[in-house]
Amino acid sequence: MNGAEGLIASAVASGVEVCFANPGTTEMQMVGALDSVPGMRAVLTLFEGVATGAADGYGRMADKPAMTLLHLGPGHANGIANLHNARRAGTPVLAVIGDHPTWHLQNDAPLTSDIESLAWPVSKWVRRVQTAKSLPGDAADGIAAARALRSGVATLIVPGECAWDAIPDAAARAAPPSPPVPADAAIESVAQILSGDAPAALLLGGAGLRARGLRAAARVAAASGAVLLSDTFISRVERGAGLPEVAKIPYFPEQANDLLSRFAHLVLVGTVEPVAFFGYPGQDGRVVPEGCALHALATPDEDVAAALEALAERLRGAAPVAAASASRPAAPQGALDPGSVGAALAAVQPDGAIVMDEAATTGFPYWVASSACPPHDYLGLTGGAIGQGLPCATGAAVACPDRPVIAFQADGSGMYTLQSLWTQAREGLDVTTVICANREYRILRVELARADISQPGPQAQSLTSLADPALDWVALAKGMGVPGAAVETAEDLVRELQRALAEPGPHLIEARI
Amino acid sequence: MNGAEGLIASAVASGVEVCFANPGTTEMQMVGALDSVPGMRAVLTLFEGVATGAADGYGRMADKPAMTLLHLGPGHANGIANLHNARRAGTPVLAVIGDHPTWHLQNDAPLTSDIESLAWPVSKWVRRVQTAKSLPGDAADGIAAARALRSGVATLIVPGECAWDAIPDAAARAAPPSPPVPADAAIESVAQILSGDAPAALLLGGAGLRARGLRAAARVAAASGAVLLSDTFISRVERGAGLPEVAKIPYFPEQANDLLSRFAHLVLVGTVEPVAFFGYPGQDGRVVPEGCALHALATPDEDVAAALEALAERLRGAAPVAAASASRPAAPQGALDPGSVGAALAAVQPDGAIVMDEAATTGFPYWVASSACPPHDYLGLTGGAIGQGLPCATGAAVACPDRPVIAFQADGSGMYTLQSLWTQAREGLDVTTVICANREYRILRVELARADISQPGPQAQSLTSLADPALDWVALAKGMGVPGAAVETAEDLVRELQRALAEPGPHLIEARI
Repeated sequence: MNGAEGLIASAVASGVEVCFANPGTTEMQMVGALDSVPGMRAVLTLFEGVATGAADGYGRMADKPAMTLLHLGPGHANGIANLHNARRAGTPVLAVIGDHPTWHLQNDAPLTSDIESLAWPVSKWVRRVQTAKSLPGDAADGIAAARALRSGVATLIVPGECAWDAIPDAAARAAPPSPPVPADAAIESVAQILSGDAPAALLLGGAGLRARGLRAAARVAAASGAVLLSDTFISRVERGAGLPEVAKIPYFPEQANDLLSRFAHLVLVGTVEPVAFFGYPGQDGRVVPEGCALHALATPDEDVAAALEALAERLRGAAPVAAASASRPAAPQGALDPGSVGAALAAVQPDGAIVMDEAATTGFPYWVASSACPPHDYLGLTGGAIGQGLPCATGAAVACPDRPVIAFQADGSGMYTLQSLWTQAREGLDVTTVICANREYRILRVELARADISQPGPQAQSLTSLADPALDWVALAKGMGVPGAAVETAEDLVRELQRALAEPGPHLIEARI
Repeated sequence: MNGAEGLIASAVASGVEVCFANPGTTEMQMVGALDSVPGMRAVLTLFEGVATGAADGYGRMADKPAMTLLHLGPGHANGIANLHNARRAGTPVLAVIGDHPTWHLQNDAPLTSDIESLAWPVSKWVRRVQTAKSLPGDAADGIAAARALRSGVATLIVPGECAWDAIPDAAARAAPPSPPVPADAAIESVAQILSGDAPAALLLGGAGLRARGLRAAARVAAASGAVLLSDTFISRVERGAGLPEVAKIPYFPEQANDLLSRFAHLVLVGTVEPVAFFGYPGQDGRVVPEGCALHALATPDEDVAAALEALAERLRGAAPVAAASASRPAAPQGALDPGSVGAALAAVQPDGAIVMDEAATTGFPYWVASSACPPHDYLGLTGGAIGQGLPCATGAAVACPDRPVIAFQADGSGMYTLQSLWTQAREGLDVTTVICANREYRILRVELARADISQPGPQAQSLTSLADPALDWVALAKGMGVPGAAVETAEDLVRELQRALAEPGPHLIEARI
């Protein structure tokens, strides 16, 4: 076998099953190995940002890494924004980059660049392979690094000769398991804080937002009166009927500060101190008030669910009476606005849906409207790098072929990685995309006002407008093989959602707001 | 005024007239300054790779930098691939990135990343602004760095407070001029080499491929018998009737080596030693044979045109009799293939056209077919980072509103940055896009065979195919406000080209090969 085959064999032996790829010449041996070594599904994307965002969505839903296969520094660079989101989500990804053969680097050929400098800002682990013989072990090390808590992006740079040189057969190496790190030290002190009279909240992240962690958190809340919160932007939360309601910290720092000022204690559970998304003049970027003491039950590197369960035991929290029956808003009628769009989605989303929310300003009302829907997963824009929604939904659908995926998508960010629709069509993925077409970067209109530019001039208006010409999302979807429909009322949105969700394969609905 | 206004004022004072932008919250003060300070045209793109590629195309045609305005590390990252191409082209660009206010960096907010690490691989100059007061001077320094020979990308990172803090009025500073660096040292030695009997070639780059340099190079060739060559991928060449024919070094290293083995001397003129685009087993990446001696007349940092003129004087080269009358191939008929597509384009392209060639394997025959067309400019894919063509054509059209621009574009690379079409529609740019729709990454089929994968398996076939589903480029163009037509014969291609070129504004033709 050659090094490339050893790489794929190690990945397969480590449980990696999917490779989202946009390869070039320096990856040809790895492309060949995807056929000669069984066990890895190759999924082509037409832009690298789709590949990396799909790996993020896949990893969030499969709880294990996908591999990405990208072409040298510039190909990797096209995937950086969504690797940034994966890093912030803590999603395990094995990012493989083919490079020139080592002896060719000194020639500074046109595609040569400093790949390490590009990769480190989004990676927890970067390694340049030295020999073909070491490549299978390097791959296993990368997979172990990617999935070790706190999981993230491991980047493996494979020079040409390491892919094509021969190595001994049976050189594959499985990555070792990543045992959870216990978080016992703080349980007693947190229990004492929660047993006091001062108002407290748990800020949940990571495994704290999955069913097991949430059930334990609900017992803690029932025993102590603590309020359950999450960060504004969430990698993945399991929610709906049978699971406790969690309030998101609001987006703008003044509102976040208002909410948190109700509490004397904020206990961090699998996440870190919340901060302002952006800094504004006269603020310092913190949102936790001076009077609110911070405590950590478990860091993102530790076994969050076990820590919550131990805390619930210590507080003798019984299983809370959760609302076991689902309830949804009534199907809305009339004009489309953020409220009616969110209600329409919540009114029809199927049991077991996966909802990827990159709907930006249009998306805010959906969270509350859907809190008691049938059980579903909700994925958020973790790193603020827009263009995550369509790729992430694509990867989630690859990970969960039996579940309906809904891409709840703003138009401005949707345009970043619209090539995702083609991969959905090719793979026959059951993704329903709702484009919230308000035809502007509406958040920037808000931010202009916050920056004291309350009367934007013509250039500021132009730079925040998607009108003139209006995007025709139905045509864009058709161009990539996805059937679409445009709607202008809530009734039509409900009807088209029901139709799209009833049919297999991808669909797109342009909701004109 | 505030720092952002000082930045724009400095840029305007330095002759920078256009800002290709996709801004976010951290750029709002600079967006506001584009209205409050007159003189800079803001052009919105719907993806950062369009903004940076447009700045590259603009810079190549305007011979001065445009500004790009991008959002933090991830927004910049989306533009890296085309900044890589600009770096390889030596195009002057002022890349401005808004960052969090300095005091917010320690909070590690979601969009925080190591911008310097991302920027250095594509920049000749990177500076993080320290205070609002220094910002106007920093901008002038960046512009001077961008346009100094060898020109390239200057990256200016602007923390929030440097944009919004007040500074004294009239703080704008114009960038100093960048006088050319004489290249006199090698003229005598090169003249002696060319006066000998051994066969020699001039490898022209930079200003050596512009009319003044080419006319001098033609005199040198006429006096000495030297052959005129260029690199395979060219930033910009002025060519057609009245200018000497230049042969490109072939793409594959064996063919390049074959060509160069005819010469005992290769004189580098504003470029560097040609090397293999990719390294293959058993090669060393060099394409200049041992028996061919390398000499440098002028480096890319030096005054190439003056050096060529001095050399022509020294050799007493009279003005050669150039073919002053244009000649074109006849309009082709029949099936579409690389030959007939290239002939169709050459048969109809208008006088003064700007042709951006990212047509990949389909593009090769066009170069020879168009050599005696009426005078035109030809732009190439300089850094190998695909997705350059549509943005670069967009920027060229902004730089040259009175000239027709033709984007000669492969389908695979076209999908990388298709959002360019929307900016063309919004700005009413006279760009005719020809999509060469062979529905595969054909170069990778060739490269698979070169990698001894002559019978690609199903996954390798899938990863190199754009069929299933076929892209409908006419629908994609319609979705972004650009009228389009699909053609399947050479006659229809000629007719649609004539129609598109006769009408103002953008058009797209999908040529199904």
